[in-house]
Amino acid sequence: MAIKVHGPVMSPAVMRVVATLKEKELDFELLSVNMQTGDHKKEPFISLNPFGQVPAFEDGDLKLFESRAITQYIAHTYADKGNQLLANEPKKMAIMSVWMEVESTKFDPIASKLNFELVVKPMLGMVTDDAAVTENEEKLGKILDVYESRLKDSKYLGGESFTLADLHHAPVVHYLMGTKVKSLFDARPHVKDWCADILARPAWSKALELHKQ
Amino acid sequence: MAIKVHGPVMSPAVMRVVATLKEKELDFELLSVNMQTGDHKKEPFISLNPFGQVPAFEDGDLKLFESRAITQYIAHTYADKGNQLLANEPKKMAIMSVWMEVESTKFDPIASKLNFELVVKPMLGMVTDDAAVTENEEKLGKILDVYESRLKDSKYLGGESFTLADLHHAPVVHYLMGTKVKSLFDARPHVKDWCADILARPAWSKALELHKQ
Repeated sequence: MAIKVHGPVMSPAVMRVVATLKEKELDFELLSVNMQTGDHKKEPFISLNPFGQVPAFEDGDLKLFESRAITQYIAHTYADKGNQLLANEPKKMAIMSVWMEVESTKFDPIASKLNFELVVKPMLGMVTDDAAVTENEEKLGKILDVYESRLKDSKYLGGESFTLADLHHAPVVHYLMGTKVKSLFDARPHVKDWCADILARPAWSKALELHKQ
Repeated sequence: MAIKVHGPVMSPAVMRVVATLKEKELDFELLSVNMQTGDHKKEPFISLNPFGQVPAFEDGDLKLFESRAITQYIAHTYADKGNQLLANEPKKMAIMSVWMEVESTKFDPIASKLNFELVVKPMLGMVTDDAAVTENEEKLGKILDVYESRLKDSKYLGGESFTLADLHHAPVVHYLMGTKVKSLFDARPHVKDWCADILARPAWSKALELHKQ
């Protein structure tokens, strides 16, 4: 099998890649990386990603890391497979890129911090930092205000069709839906509908099924 | 004039866009935004960028924000102008994307924090947080270790030619070169040469000339 994804499927960054592969209906091999024993910081993994973070990705002789670079490679290279995940003309692509940057530089640092405090720490028996939660809830609320305004005018963040700009949010949104932060999404009707939409996609359900294996 | 960049030219994010336009030898109009009076948080600016951050960008009827989305739009749309800033085939483009993501999600949060503490705060008469500097110097050192290793094998981060993956670093590297953090770059010979190379580009000098106006 040509495509390999290295990393634990519970990781949001791994899920971002897996969901993209499911949208494109591509076969792939998922290779576990034991992060509890630090395998992501050792060879052979760090030859795939010198930063020692999951996921790493292989397609034949091409080796990549950084989940959002991987999803873009998949969406471009396999444009004719499965669901289209890119905008269909250059100006629309530029607007999609804007919202991909918003996800990666604005939404994700805050949403991932909340995920760490409210999902990961309890799972590991660590104590949640309530002050950090409050601070990041406030920040997330301000970002979601902009999302609400954007989603009033546009069905999806990147434009009228579902693209990587939406998909990149799915893993962390999925986890936050199981926490009290859900109320921040639910309080904004267009954001609430958008969350429901991106999490109801068949490819997302297929990606989640891997959690059970 | 069709292309407009809104924002103060001293801002690293604005410089990222300006340097790209200079590489592409494109004419543009630079429109100042007075951040001291909070004009970036008010209309008409927030209609261009709802997050109230510089830069905002216009090319005819297309309005964009997020500096890295803007540079990608310019590099793709004006591919036949000035210097090529993209890799020339899909697999190389994917590798360039990896290093663009590394810059935006790993290098920039830390380097920009150091820039804030060591350049911006002194300029505004604020007190530098020495503990934050020490913490981020350590983090930056680890990232530059990976860069050193990458630049041993590859002339530029994205591949054998200069691309956006390098250019995106230039503004913050430029500012940090005037601080004690310069020693972290200088201690790594390939990183040191790479910094000298990207800051010696004629387009970068032309971008810097705008600081004097």
